[in-house]
Amino acid sequence: MKNFRQKQRPRKNTLIPGCQRVKEAFSSGVILDRIYLDTRASGREIDEIKKLAAAKQVPVNYVPVAKLESFNVSDHEGVIAQISKVKYHDLQQIISFVVEKGEAPLFLILDGITDIRNIGGMARTAYCCGVHAIIIPGKGVGALNEDAILTSAGALEKIPVCRVHSLVKAADELHLNGIKIFASEMTAEKNVFDCRFKDPCAIIMGSEEKGIHPVLLKAADEKFKIPMSGDFESLNVSVATGIILFEAMKQRMLQ
Amino acid sequence: MKNFRQKQRPRKNTLIPGCQRVKEAFSSGVILDRIYLDTRASGREIDEIKKLAAAKQVPVNYVPVAKLESFNVSDHEGVIAQISKVKYHDLQQIISFVVEKGEAPLFLILDGITDIRNIGGMARTAYCCGVHAIIIPGKGVGALNEDAILTSAGALEKIPVCRVHSLVKAADELHLNGIKIFASEMTAEKNVFDCRFKDPCAIIMGSEEKGIHPVLLKAADEKFKIPMSGDFESLNVSVATGIILFEAMKQRMLQ
Repeated sequence: MKNFRQKQRPRKNTLIPGCQRVKEAFSSGVILDRIYLDTRASGREIDEIKKLAAAKQVPVNYVPVAKLESFNVSDHEGVIAQISKVKYHDLQQIISFVVEKGEAPLFLILDGITDIRNIGGMARTAYCCGVHAIIIPGKGVGALNEDAILTSAGALEKIPVCRVHSLVKAADELHLNGIKIFASEMTAEKNVFDCRFKDPCAIIMGSEEKGIHPVLLKAADEKFKIPMSGDFESLNVSVATGIILFEAMKQRMLQ
Repeated sequence: MKNFRQKQRPRKNTLIPGCQRVKEAFSSGVILDRIYLDTRASGREIDEIKKLAAAKQVPVNYVPVAKLESFNVSDHEGVIAQISKVKYHDLQQIISFVVEKGEAPLFLILDGITDIRNIGGMARTAYCCGVHAIIIPGKGVGALNEDAILTSAGALEKIPVCRVHSLVKAADELHLNGIKIFASEMTAEKNVFDCRFKDPCAIIMGSEEKGIHPVLLKAADEKFKIPMSGDFESLNVSVATGIILFEAMKQRMLQ
């Protein structure tokens, strides 16, 4: 899908400009996707917004003022909040919720998948295959906007999404909860269908270009590959995710 | 991917305008994807081109002259040939070739998948999973152009593509060669992983919107579904194809 990726600009009606309105948004219960802050902005109100963002775990993107201008909203005073189309969930809460239901957690971790349409496509597959939540990093992933939801055929509004500050820390949290971490890696020796996905587990998918970050890969308990017939470099990441999650679902169905 | 589908216009350097040049193209060995013919064009030369097209199995699209004008090439005289980027193969020849190699044929039939980028994506998966050829209908599928090849990550230049006049007749030809036909159908009772794909077989995939045409579906020996966890209508067709072909490849690898 990447060949047709377009520069995304947030829709105007999802943007809240100006210090006072952004502060109000924090207390109103509106879910914020991120805060765009002029790198040169300062003062008491800006500090307040930074604190609120930290407390509510809303990522702050420090940008040149030209970026804010490009959004074409007036009176931004160096700060624009973007409303989220997707409700983000707390990872620990989701883990507890799934365990309390008596199910074995199955999570999908997306590392370096920056194209929101790819994320949408993968969310659709994940939802179909019974994944309990998708875990994405706060940085490097665009807002999950209308396009992402459309590509997901609505799945992004149904499957919980956990946006975490650090995927490595999220891996620690998963381990603490007894959840095994698998990583999809082309050079792995083990085949995907020799993995046991019945137990509580999370599966990391990396981007087609860069794969999984080495530090995160180190946190994985087991690596596997999808065996291929052709002399081809790889499957499309969305198709690969489908094959892996279907294998997991199949194992769980036959339990 | 369909949300970002754009109206495709063939690139100028892949077009051959005018009666004489089109006739020459037929005898030069250039592979032609299709002939665009003004619905009102007539005369000896036009008749000759129609006969050549029929003999060489090149589809003819009858179009209003405005369509030809939109290609923006001069002196078309009511006829424009489009050069093919993909080499099309004869189905019977491919079957014989595979059987002579001592392998059990595995084919992918695409019914109603009109978006060439979807076809590109599925070709990539098919190539990775050891599919011997993709079978597409002559009508209703756009030219497999640069965009299709790009989406296929080059697979469309490696995996044979058979473009047939009728998929139902192609199904007959497959049957005559002892090749079993499977159809992916959401309402089927059998699960994909209960199918036996080790023997010579062809798998039909329909479009997300319309599914498989009833007449073609009737020609299928066995129908199967991909079992789903969610209350969701379906997987993306490209992901579904990946899951099915991977299951086929897995069975063949474990043989």
